[in-house]
Amino acid sequence: MSQNSLETMFRPKSVAILGASTDENKIGGRPLRYLKHYAFDGPIYPINPNYPEVQGLKAYKSILEVGGGVDLALIVLPAAAVLQAIRECAEKGVKAVVIFSSGFAETGDEGREAQLEMRRIAEEAGMRIVGPNCMGIAAFDHNMIITFGVSMLNLPPELGPVSIVSQSGAFGSVAYAEARQRHLGVRLWATTGNEADVNVADCLNYYIEDPETKVILMYFEASRDGAKLMAGLDAAKKARKPIVAMKVGSSDVGAEAALSHTDSLAGSDSVVDTVLEKYNAYRAYTLDEFFDIGYAFTSGLFPAGNRLGIVTISGGVGILMSDHAVKLGLDVARLSEPAQAKVKEVIPFAGTRNPVDITGQAINQPEILEHCLDIMIEEGEHDVIIVYFAGMTSMEFLRKAGLIRIREKHPTAAIIVSVTMGEEARKVFDDLNYLVIPEPTRAVRAAAALMQMGQGYAKAEPRTPPSLPAPVDVPAEMPNEVEAKRILAKAGVPVVDERLATAADEAGISAAEIGFPVAMKLVSTDILHKSEIGGVLLNVADEAAAREGYDTLIERAKTTQPDAKVDGVVVAPMISGGVETILGVKGDPAFGPVVLFGLGGIFVELLGDVTQRLAPFGVEEAQEMMREVKGFPLLDGARGAEPADVDALAEALSRLSVFAHENADRIESIDINPFLVLPKGQGAFAVDALIVPSK
Amino acid sequence: MSQNSLETMFRPKSVAILGASTDENKIGGRPLRYLKHYAFDGPIYPINPNYPEVQGLKAYKSILEVGGGVDLALIVLPAAAVLQAIRECAEKGVKAVVIFSSGFAETGDEGREAQLEMRRIAEEAGMRIVGPNCMGIAAFDHNMIITFGVSMLNLPPELGPVSIVSQSGAFGSVAYAEARQRHLGVRLWATTGNEADVNVADCLNYYIEDPETKVILMYFEASRDGAKLMAGLDAAKKARKPIVAMKVGSSDVGAEAALSHTDSLAGSDSVVDTVLEKYNAYRAYTLDEFFDIGYAFTSGLFPAGNRLGIVTISGGVGILMSDHAVKLGLDVARLSEPAQAKVKEVIPFAGTRNPVDITGQAINQPEILEHCLDIMIEEGEHDVIIVYFAGMTSMEFLRKAGLIRIREKHPTAAIIVSVTMGEEARKVFDDLNYLVIPEPTRAVRAAAALMQMGQGYAKAEPRTPPSLPAPVDVPAEMPNEVEAKRILAKAGVPVVDERLATAADEAGISAAEIGFPVAMKLVSTDILHKSEIGGVLLNVADEAAAREGYDTLIERAKTTQPDAKVDGVVVAPMISGGVETILGVKGDPAFGPVVLFGLGGIFVELLGDVTQRLAPFGVEEAQEMMREVKGFPLLDGARGAEPADVDALAEALSRLSVFAHENADRIESIDINPFLVLPKGQGAFAVDALIVPSK
Repeated sequence: MSQNSLETMFRPKSVAILGASTDENKIGGRPLRYLKHYAFDGPIYPINPNYPEVQGLKAYKSILEVGGGVDLALIVLPAAAVLQAIRECAEKGVKAVVIFSSGFAETGDEGREAQLEMRRIAEEAGMRIVGPNCMGIAAFDHNMIITFGVSMLNLPPELGPVSIVSQSGAFGSVAYAEARQRHLGVRLWATTGNEADVNVADCLNYYIEDPETKVILMYFEASRDGAKLMAGLDAAKKARKPIVAMKVGSSDVGAEAALSHTDSLAGSDSVVDTVLEKYNAYRAYTLDEFFDIGYAFTSGLFPAGNRLGIVTISGGVGILMSDHAVKLGLDVARLSEPAQAKVKEVIPFAGTRNPVDITGQAINQPEILEHCLDIMIEEGEHDVIIVYFAGMTSMEFLRKAGLIRIREKHPTAAIIVSVTMGEEARKVFDDLNYLVIPEPTRAVRAAAALMQMGQGYAKAEPRTPPSLPAPVDVPAEMPNEVEAKRILAKAGVPVVDERLATAADEAGISAAEIGFPVAMKLVSTDILHKSEIGGVLLNVADEAAAREGYDTLIERAKTTQPDAKVDGVVVAPMISGGVETILGVKGDPAFGPVVLFGLGGIFVELLGDVTQRLAPFGVEEAQEMMREVKGFPLLDGARGAEPADVDALAEALSRLSVFAHENADRIESIDINPFLVLPKGQGAFAVDALIVPSK
Repeated sequence: MSQNSLETMFRPKSVAILGASTDENKIGGRPLRYLKHYAFDGPIYPINPNYPEVQGLKAYKSILEVGGGVDLALIVLPAAAVLQAIRECAEKGVKAVVIFSSGFAETGDEGREAQLEMRRIAEEAGMRIVGPNCMGIAAFDHNMIITFGVSMLNLPPELGPVSIVSQSGAFGSVAYAEARQRHLGVRLWATTGNEADVNVADCLNYYIEDPETKVILMYFEASRDGAKLMAGLDAAKKARKPIVAMKVGSSDVGAEAALSHTDSLAGSDSVVDTVLEKYNAYRAYTLDEFFDIGYAFTSGLFPAGNRLGIVTISGGVGILMSDHAVKLGLDVARLSEPAQAKVKEVIPFAGTRNPVDITGQAINQPEILEHCLDIMIEEGEHDVIIVYFAGMTSMEFLRKAGLIRIREKHPTAAIIVSVTMGEEARKVFDDLNYLVIPEPTRAVRAAAALMQMGQGYAKAEPRTPPSLPAPVDVPAEMPNEVEAKRILAKAGVPVVDERLATAADEAGISAAEIGFPVAMKLVSTDILHKSEIGGVLLNVADEAAAREGYDTLIERAKTTQPDAKVDGVVVAPMISGGVETILGVKGDPAFGPVVLFGLGGIFVELLGDVTQRLAPFGVEEAQEMMREVKGFPLLDGARGAEPADVDALAEALSRLSVFAHENADRIESIDINPFLVLPKGQGAFAVDALIVPSK
């Protein structure tokens, strides 16, 4: 189904309501009330067999009785009656249906089956479905409001640059109300519920194409269509339409609740992070953050730096903001000596380093602010400037402080005014494109978010890594360790120089080829913990010992696990030195293969010190990636060690990612542990590897 | 000076204002305006040689001309005139002076000297000083407001259970305004500025004794008197008067700003954390948190558990809250099966696990909330319950939802209502001792804070560890490694069995006594990096080698550092196995010795994985402490290792803390690295140690 069909869904010419209620406060009555109240411009057809008229409009016994065409049909019926209603909608040629009714996939298998059936009917008829178990959609520029929440009555819409999509109906309703209470104008609004058809990603993609939508607020519990979501995120990034995303269900409890809420499998939370980061979408963790950042993004000012300037009337709050900024990785950059001297001229007792502390003196002489702010903006050494005044401040004072003149002089400076102000002043400041965020640490976070986006937009598109020279086959059955390494080697991931021996003599010859001492290990996919059964021999010193070692290992396998299929014994050089790392791949059901990297030893196991990227990626990304783990200094020559061959590591990571990407359907997971990184210039290679094919 | 003197300071019978202005909006005019406006009950004496009358009151040329006694004098004069004014106040027998004037210690040495002089004058006269560089004090129950901030005019005081003390004047003013805007009634208020005399700790101690003060909000940049602060924190804990503390200057930039702001050396931020944690004070990092938690504490409900119950109208927000709760270490405990069944009876489609998702259905049937909440409270399996409704909710709805009846039935249940409501409803809810926190994740944080305090109050007072059997001397000169270990051994910290040899023969004999192989090391406080000059020999195999080794080491010292004083060679057994840890002591200028613990290797150096406690503490504390580092599993037998002798480690930590405490004045730092912990039952001991005596 095409994306265009959402146009008719959000901007229908006519609407029918199946289950329209005469009581305008009932779930079936409220949407009709909205359409009438906000003067929807088109015919509205209440469908209710029990009344000739509903809320003053002629009612129909069935949608099939309606004379004209119907673009959008809302279904507010008991779950049992929904399928039949959808069939009638399809017969009528309806373009889209919105289903409030719950009692489908979120309740279990029977409901899930009914939901699949509604999808089949709709697909056949070329009809879109929103829901079931949703709270509707709205296009405020079209006076089209289909919901049963009360928030859009209590807080009448005010058009603005923000469009909202929420998988959760109630959250969508909350988001609308909070946005309105927080001075955010909303344009398009959708809740997708169980997502029998239209999902969050569909709406996202539609919003990006909407010319008046500048910022998108998105709430989701799971992504049913990772590819479409990523396409949307990518398009948003390219269109510079910032997204603030809230993805819940990161905790086990939360994930369990998400399942019963909208039948959502929350998926790996860290993968969602990785995806959002890749496409420069901002992830929020609290409602304050969700709306603060969404609001900040409406300014459209995204400086690509990280230097924060602070002008404050309270030294204490200035320190608080500095602490917070440093925690968020910002640079509270010192003013230049000449700029500091200029500030001193304006106010001799000021703190001039940055924060510029204009002190309580500014209450008596508001113009101090204008002068100091001017000095900072003209110096041009800060990407965002926050101006903090204590408490409630009058418009008169703000005018005297020169903030209006400042804007005339510097229309595109990113300035956040951290001030509590009245509605009138607020309006003036909004029109001047000042951001107003009274809580000072929240102002700092908003500043950080603007710069984070700016840096993301400024960053060069990562280079696409070259494909594998030739396709590399992955067998359907799990390959043994030696085969796994051969596959990886073909894919360009270096592996240890080893030989598979299937007889004692062969083991001896292989060992001699490699050079002594060697390590020997049983090769068998049936024996999981080889060292526990004595399946590993280290420091085998000569050919005779190698031959004997072969027999010993085979014997041990036979004694301890007689049924195990043994493929032979692998002979490899004994290696000392180097840094042990772990490379991995995990297939994410929504977003495809993810490549993991961490240091060996305690780092991954004990500290969970890993990082990951969506496959595929090039060596530049790999270089960035490895620098994200806490243990990186060990690769970089910490504690007097030799710096390791990080270039070889980066190349291997990139090659692994390409391999995983090209075989996404065939690989469930890859575990290379250890992957040994030798000193600079000496390379790196997989010592052991496990490839688990998809089932 | 006694604490009682603060009583006259906060509740004076008469007030003089030196530098009173005829302009009621000037810094010297506003305090007079406040006293008149809020009807201070006592004589007010404006001192101003230029006018016969100031703001309608008879003015005096000098304080010495005033006929009656003066309890409190405010000084609003240029810095140059302040010392003379203080001398006159002392002569007049004034009990306390408040000094707004800045230009003292925060500006440099000259100002610092003047500040010391004012302190001397006051001490001699038995007079207290607030400031200089402060914004005054207030006792709202006494109509005594001495400040030049405007917030107390814009937002008239409303008495309540909260008292505020802030080192920063402007922050104090912000805090008052924010508190009032956030429905917090304030009782006592003080800003201490440069703290020539009265400091944050003095005010804290006074507030604790004030019977009507229930919650204390405290802002500070440095503690000039750690002992007094700790005494106050301890008293507050015992009196169950919760403290919310904001300590700024944690970042380098912030610390630099604090120095120029109120001449504060921010000190070690982690030590402040340790101190606040010890005395169960809550540290806040944002203004929202500062006031949210202060507000939450006014409920006086501190359940000693960590189980959070959630009732929500939005499944999505329920998941969000669950995620947040888990992040904060709370248990979103599952409802019992019978309770879940009861909830199902009330609303069949509800999520019943916890969060209890009462769904949008509650809008049509508000009584659903009452029933579900009743079930949860009566089940008694949750320590705090949060009730979340979306958006703005009317008093009528809240009444229908049964929240008033719930309170009648369960007057002491800790319940946070996460709802946006109007002023009228807010008043009703405050009176019912419901906490109202609209932002759901902030509600979760407040719940966590209540339980954190409850757990802290419920925790048994830690046992005082036994003193050292006999005092242990610490020399004024830095002892060498062997001496340092002997000192530690006397203090009860086990050390390696080693011998100091001062001749080759002696080295041979010692080595034989210990048993081969041995390690040998130069002993010299002048040679810092012994292994770099070959000053360490490992695996010395027999007596001859030990004798020879002695000569080799001495020779190497002579060759590389001929001026170094060499005390001999230490001979110790070669030890393998065990877990290397690091024990340390650091003397904090404000809070005394702090004991640090971390694991060796990468943990401390690379990961900063350390924990600390104020000395002294017992073995129970030590056991808790070691479990706080991320690397603890290595002591606990992670990765197949033998569990280490943590009891021996705990004993050593406790003994070290007692030693550090008893010698607080004589020790600058101690570094025991490594301290080797052997497998369970086999003990632990210091391998190397450094004691740096105080200068």
